[in-house]
Amino acid sequence: MAYPQTAFRAVKLSPGSLIHKRHETVFSTTLMYQLEVLKGTGRYDAFKLGWHPSYDDPPDVWPIPNHLFWDSDIAKWIEGACYLLGNHQSSEVDTAIHELVAMIRSAQQPDGYINIHFTVVEPEKRFTNLRDFHELYNAGHMIEAALAHQDHYHNDQLIEPILKYVDLLCQRFGPGTNQTHGYPGHPEIELALLRLYERTKNSKHLDLAKYFITERGNPVGDDGHHFYISEAKRRGDDPRRRPDYWPDKSCLWYYAAHEPITKQKSIEGHSVRAMYLLTAAADLILNADLPLQDLQRAVFGLWDNMVQRKMYVTGGIGAMKQWEGFGPDYFLPQGTDEGGCYAETCAAIGVMMLAERLLKSDLDGRFTDIMELCLYNAVLTAMSPDGRNFTYVNQLASSDKDPSQRSSWFTCACCPPNMLRLFGHVGGYIYSTSSSSEPKHTEIIVHLYTGSTLKFEVDGKEASLTQETNWPWNGNVKFRFESPSENVSCKLRIPAWADDFHLSPSPPSLHVEKGYVSIPASWLAKNPSFELSIPMTPRLMKQHPLTNQDTISVARGPIVYCVEDVDNPWVTDHFRSLQLDPQCQFTERNVNDEGNNDNYIALTVEKGASLLDEGAFSAPSTKVNKWDEAVNHGELVEELHFVPYFLRASRGGRGQARVGLKHWRK
Amino acid sequence: MAYPQTAFRAVKLSPGSLIHKRHETVFSTTLMYQLEVLKGTGRYDAFKLGWHPSYDDPPDVWPIPNHLFWDSDIAKWIEGACYLLGNHQSSEVDTAIHELVAMIRSAQQPDGYINIHFTVVEPEKRFTNLRDFHELYNAGHMIEAALAHQDHYHNDQLIEPILKYVDLLCQRFGPGTNQTHGYPGHPEIELALLRLYERTKNSKHLDLAKYFITERGNPVGDDGHHFYISEAKRRGDDPRRRPDYWPDKSCLWYYAAHEPITKQKSIEGHSVRAMYLLTAAADLILNADLPLQDLQRAVFGLWDNMVQRKMYVTGGIGAMKQWEGFGPDYFLPQGTDEGGCYAETCAAIGVMMLAERLLKSDLDGRFTDIMELCLYNAVLTAMSPDGRNFTYVNQLASSDKDPSQRSSWFTCACCPPNMLRLFGHVGGYIYSTSSSSEPKHTEIIVHLYTGSTLKFEVDGKEASLTQETNWPWNGNVKFRFESPSENVSCKLRIPAWADDFHLSPSPPSLHVEKGYVSIPASWLAKNPSFELSIPMTPRLMKQHPLTNQDTISVARGPIVYCVEDVDNPWVTDHFRSLQLDPQCQFTERNVNDEGNNDNYIALTVEKGASLLDEGAFSAPSTKVNKWDEAVNHGELVEELHFVPYFLRASRGGRGQARVGLKHWRK
Repeated sequence: MAYPQTAFRAVKLSPGSLIHKRHETVFSTTLMYQLEVLKGTGRYDAFKLGWHPSYDDPPDVWPIPNHLFWDSDIAKWIEGACYLLGNHQSSEVDTAIHELVAMIRSAQQPDGYINIHFTVVEPEKRFTNLRDFHELYNAGHMIEAALAHQDHYHNDQLIEPILKYVDLLCQRFGPGTNQTHGYPGHPEIELALLRLYERTKNSKHLDLAKYFITERGNPVGDDGHHFYISEAKRRGDDPRRRPDYWPDKSCLWYYAAHEPITKQKSIEGHSVRAMYLLTAAADLILNADLPLQDLQRAVFGLWDNMVQRKMYVTGGIGAMKQWEGFGPDYFLPQGTDEGGCYAETCAAIGVMMLAERLLKSDLDGRFTDIMELCLYNAVLTAMSPDGRNFTYVNQLASSDKDPSQRSSWFTCACCPPNMLRLFGHVGGYIYSTSSSSEPKHTEIIVHLYTGSTLKFEVDGKEASLTQETNWPWNGNVKFRFESPSENVSCKLRIPAWADDFHLSPSPPSLHVEKGYVSIPASWLAKNPSFELSIPMTPRLMKQHPLTNQDTISVARGPIVYCVEDVDNPWVTDHFRSLQLDPQCQFTERNVNDEGNNDNYIALTVEKGASLLDEGAFSAPSTKVNKWDEAVNHGELVEELHFVPYFLRASRGGRGQARVGLKHWRK
Repeated sequence: MAYPQTAFRAVKLSPGSLIHKRHETVFSTTLMYQLEVLKGTGRYDAFKLGWHPSYDDPPDVWPIPNHLFWDSDIAKWIEGACYLLGNHQSSEVDTAIHELVAMIRSAQQPDGYINIHFTVVEPEKRFTNLRDFHELYNAGHMIEAALAHQDHYHNDQLIEPILKYVDLLCQRFGPGTNQTHGYPGHPEIELALLRLYERTKNSKHLDLAKYFITERGNPVGDDGHHFYISEAKRRGDDPRRRPDYWPDKSCLWYYAAHEPITKQKSIEGHSVRAMYLLTAAADLILNADLPLQDLQRAVFGLWDNMVQRKMYVTGGIGAMKQWEGFGPDYFLPQGTDEGGCYAETCAAIGVMMLAERLLKSDLDGRFTDIMELCLYNAVLTAMSPDGRNFTYVNQLASSDKDPSQRSSWFTCACCPPNMLRLFGHVGGYIYSTSSSSEPKHTEIIVHLYTGSTLKFEVDGKEASLTQETNWPWNGNVKFRFESPSENVSCKLRIPAWADDFHLSPSPPSLHVEKGYVSIPASWLAKNPSFELSIPMTPRLMKQHPLTNQDTISVARGPIVYCVEDVDNPWVTDHFRSLQLDPQCQFTERNVNDEGNNDNYIALTVEKGASLLDEGAFSAPSTKVNKWDEAVNHGELVEELHFVPYFLRASRGGRGQARVGLKHWRK
């Protein structure tokens, strides 16, 4: 079972596409830029196990020391670098990786333990706070780095110490009477262990992943008590001194550990933790010998709950800042001045990871649609086109308190290196293949459209599928199959937003099932070159009425649009009072943004929007008929300009931006 | 300048009206019921200064000991009882008041100090935490109780020790170098001191009130620092162990102390604290020798900000549970499952108090409209018709987690005795009078309509004005003036919701200014009996579009309606998916609810509502045209029954209720 983290090696992105551009940017700029940051902030040398002055800093988010994630920052950079080196060469990057690996090796303790904080700062506290202290999260990222390192360098320099560390973990954690019955507050190691198991086939790795996933939330797992409650008691925690991210006295739901996953029906708590956990659970379902029906039902149910009730129109998840996660069902305000909006970058990357795993269980375009939605919007928006500026939070509307702006780095720096590693292996999300030997048959499934070539083997011989397209700006995709065999079929995803699609030449019959159209092998053998056309025109979208968001969002193909003050300089209130007429007409404009080396389609609406006159309403309520009149009091907007949401805060301006505009009912 | 707390003694409520019924209920039931609770919970005997076992209980809301408000619970009961004894007799109540007063006298410390907690539990901590520990709040309520006690009993048994306590406070707090430069975290004493000053004319009382009000929020008031910051340092507070009601590390805005009131433009923090503070500030404006223009501008500005952007259609204020207060501008979800709704009872009573003071500065019906809105909705809803069950939080929509239900008492019991004292002196809100001697003239201003008689003096002789009306169910009000003088004019409020009004007989010209119609003395002398008619029909109201509440609320006259499951038993989702067609037709029905001894008008809509089909929408967004179709997928509701919001949770049912229904756009 291929993971995108390895499958990408068979995929070559063609120059010119948006995805290829970002992939190139992360190599040409982000990779070295982040290496400089690792060096400048002390992370690079941290595995030398010396003291860094920042270890004395008080936590920004109590009780988590600010440097607690440094291991993962380094691991994620190594992982991303190893992906990027698959298509590029850089002796500087090679050198850095070799130095870092040497430091990690030398930082390993005699018993196999590897961790900066718990070796340098608080060695006596090792494994005493699985709930909050990210030891196992860091270990998970180290495993993923080691896998990528082994793939690229074909040596065991990193995986060797990591396997030794994993041995220690397998010994320490599990159901045995002498083992700790715990699991990480921040999931990550579970998905890493499953990927490790695919490499090692060592059942200990599968077993530990399974233990962490299935033990989580056990109300009586630790000698009759919930592990996190027993663990806190053992630490002697002051119950009044609660973590900054807890809104209440006890928040096991923050960790998605309030009950076993199999019992969870509503997605709760910290969104990144939930996504990493469910990605692992979805992977476990694929890996387990025995069917895990309860787990499967729960994971699919939680996906549905999330997508139907807790996901923004951009694919972003998480409305609540305090716990970086999910609010109540249908609570999806666009900005903090309207009650909240978080939509963390890593969470959107997590949605892509989860969707990819779910597709392996159930090939259904509803997962791919969300995967693509996240990629082009909630994820892509998190990095500026120059690859040097990032967002951690991806709000749909700015405010004076939280303007639309980017940062070059964050104290808690999970998001920027996550962009690096995602764009390092993004090719792995485009295709999947399945093959059977009896009868001999290979099927190529095309999930995403972007200029690229997939190489695969049929009957031991090389074959390929090439896409030529200007997606996401144009819905025409030219395919070219080169295969020595006639036993190759394919499936092409038809997005749910597509009003229509055409194939040319046209197969005698077209069967679309769950969002994928099947191209039979016989037809493909005769028509190795064909073209898929999906019309792309601007469309207007609304969120579920129970969100209380009576707003219209503009999309075109997979791209969600926004309005920004740089194109609409008259704005003063972050477009909060802007209303859009659903009957409005769009004109499209090809923009060649030389500064950002980006081409995109911008949209303009003429006389199709107006500004609410905020003062035209009575307080605290207005009679319906007067309300209807008041709505039309405001000024007509002559021209309203939209740009792709992913471009926000990248072209200057005053930090005012918005996705959903009030539904103007004339 | 009359306060309602004394003005009510000139007003006799006529039997039969809703207000009179509640007034009678608080005497016949609530008063004795609450006395039992005071006795049963240990409050009654607390001024004996013995130890109560509950003093050992951990705080429900850290760091505030649960019993910290007991002084105020007793004071508010005494105050309410003294109001009620103005119209009723009860030797049992007399006895209890006399016992309590004796206990309070005996609890006074040699230096004048009176406080249960800081005498019995933590005497060493007296005046060390003005920010959180309610000492001055309790003192304020003791002052108000003493004023009411003196009015009713015409003796100094209670006011004598209280004046001694106030002397201590005047000595301790103020701008002097040997004084504490602090002010209470929970305002109350300010408004009490101003009322005391009206009685004593002792300028020390005015000065201390003025100091507390104007010093508040001084960033450098305590030796170059904010008082609350210095005070916390003096206590050696652990900065990580923050009060449960603080969402962030420092929350001076919770106390409306983040800056001086004169600089505040947005109403923030705890809603009751803000209302008590602004009531005092509005009173100070009336009392001060020098005009306080900056303060006046700020108080009126904060009122406007609150009413225009932070008030529910019921008059409730405060969306945020954690800090029992205001959210961002226009953040007004109806229930906790939609992001929040608090609307505390005491806050709505505070709005009435503030409106009453503002009317004294500026006779404008916009204040009275809100005062009446609160009275009949946000306040009245907080007590069941039987006078024994209460709500602390007055949400506009229930949810499974927070059903629509009442409690017989609360650990933090501010609201029930506040209902007692409000309904004890509610007559004081109905009228105000102004008179001039040169030329001799008296004007009676009628703010509220309800069956009642106001007695007043003209030229040393008794005069009266009587209203006969079935308000709030019927808008016809018969007035009868009995006056020995012809120099009496009157003003009648015309509510903003009134589409029209008539006077019969009709004066030659009618002048309405700022919501009040003036009846000249000459006409009144000839027409001592006349009738005002204000049509009352159901009307549909919407909140400001920036609230993102695309909902319709139903009102009739001053009464806001809701739907409840007891009348609409098919409901399963707390009416969240119910949509109301603004073209719907209402039928009215007079209900004689014998169980509750209440008469009211219920409303029914036939075939004017439908249920959203929650599953008819795509996730996470739907194309606009399909969204419009999906909205009409659901089931038509044959009959939808509305009852006054104040009756919610009083007639059985399963705890499902809602005020605002989705705007159904067919």
